[in-house]
Amino acid sequence: MPATPKLDQLRVVLVETRNPLNIGAAARAMSNFGFFRLRVVKPYEKAFRTAKSAVGAAELLAKAEQFDSLAEAIADCKLVVGTTAVGHREVNHSLKRLEIGARVIRKHLVSQPVALLFGSERFGLSRQDLSYCHWLMRIPARSEHGSMNLGQAVAICLYELIRNPRAAGVTDKKYPLATSGDVDRVTSALLEALKESEYIHEGMEARIHDLTRRMIVRFNLEKRDAEAWLGIFRQILWKLRQKRD
Amino acid sequence: MPATPKLDQLRVVLVETRNPLNIGAAARAMSNFGFFRLRVVKPYEKAFRTAKSAVGAAELLAKAEQFDSLAEAIADCKLVVGTTAVGHREVNHSLKRLEIGARVIRKHLVSQPVALLFGSERFGLSRQDLSYCHWLMRIPARSEHGSMNLGQAVAICLYELIRNPRAAGVTDKKYPLATSGDVDRVTSALLEALKESEYIHEGMEARIHDLTRRMIVRFNLEKRDAEAWLGIFRQILWKLRQKRD
Repeated sequence: MPATPKLDQLRVVLVETRNPLNIGAAARAMSNFGFFRLRVVKPYEKAFRTAKSAVGAAELLAKAEQFDSLAEAIADCKLVVGTTAVGHREVNHSLKRLEIGARVIRKHLVSQPVALLFGSERFGLSRQDLSYCHWLMRIPARSEHGSMNLGQAVAICLYELIRNPRAAGVTDKKYPLATSGDVDRVTSALLEALKESEYIHEGMEARIHDLTRRMIVRFNLEKRDAEAWLGIFRQILWKLRQKRD
Repeated sequence: MPATPKLDQLRVVLVETRNPLNIGAAARAMSNFGFFRLRVVKPYEKAFRTAKSAVGAAELLAKAEQFDSLAEAIADCKLVVGTTAVGHREVNHSLKRLEIGARVIRKHLVSQPVALLFGSERFGLSRQDLSYCHWLMRIPARSEHGSMNLGQAVAICLYELIRNPRAAGVTDKKYPLATSGDVDRVTSALLEALKESEYIHEGMEARIHDLTRRMIVRFNLEKRDAEAWLGIFRQILWKLRQKRD
């Protein structure tokens, strides 16, 4: 059985972020997905800790570590991964698609600190920043568009890290389905109402009966739906008959 | 060979968004991932088209369609999916994990318009909004944190939709699905019949209306079913009224 990645082994490193709102947005995404170790390198505003868009992530932001150089910010990390949305001109690096890169990072997070780097809004990671990276991870966005929003890029990378590929295939059906008996009762009640309202005329009953049951079967009724419909048709029937008398 | 999902079949629908910057952020994420049909329902600011955070998505934003009600915004859609990050209190809906839900949406995008709904920053989708949804899609964030940033939620959902374009294994639906407008007509006809048969009493109408629509939405009606039900309820209604007179 594969060992579990430890999320607190990940350091999200924002390099020379210009807009403190983006630091707040990154912090919020981290908190959403259970990552808590934020590092900032030379942010343009010293006051980044008060970033307003960090709804629910104030504590995380208060504990963020600030560094004057990238080298210091990643000194304790055994794997350093840069991110890009556009596919860098700088192609000296191996460039992994996000799904693939995230899988490699998860393996490292089992036992080792990993740094995930995000560059500035305008210029991304510099040539020098890139020189610290073991490889780059690419978010598969349209190249025509150019850059991504920083907070969104962080959110997507972290989502990919916590997404459990093995979880695929599980549907969470919460409500039990109606039994065949339930479906029969609903069908009968509806047919009674159809007869009483003269939707069905003599002679066509058998055909309509099959059509109706087939339609109701197709709905894949949950038990609670079957009960609701039964109540509805019985009430309608009662009313139709009451008026007749 | 599986057919390709058509990204322009997706309508990203932002419901009662409060902050125009978030509309801009959503537009930018859409442009990043190749989705271009944005619809907004009752945004809090009329001036949302000038949202500054829509870097590179000004044209998309200028073409955004504005609606006064959710019903109008989704009238042409055959599948309506709500999004949530927290796992709703309102648990009457089937809740699919993002990976699973995205796979289902991709299949529909091959041939049918799909609406993907995002609620307001503060309250998410309302009970009434939810009653239009066939099912909900959950971004697997930590429940302790509470809500996600709107632009990030949009970005993550769209990323998941384009993540593996080849993964869409499609089975051709033989019968076209009912549109949201069809479902509305069936719901209204049924409600009339419920009123006429005194299943509904004064004061409970609004609640029953949402419950009823939700139930009918859940059936995933085919167009032929919608027509059959409409015929049935209209006939019942006619008979109920005939007897009254």
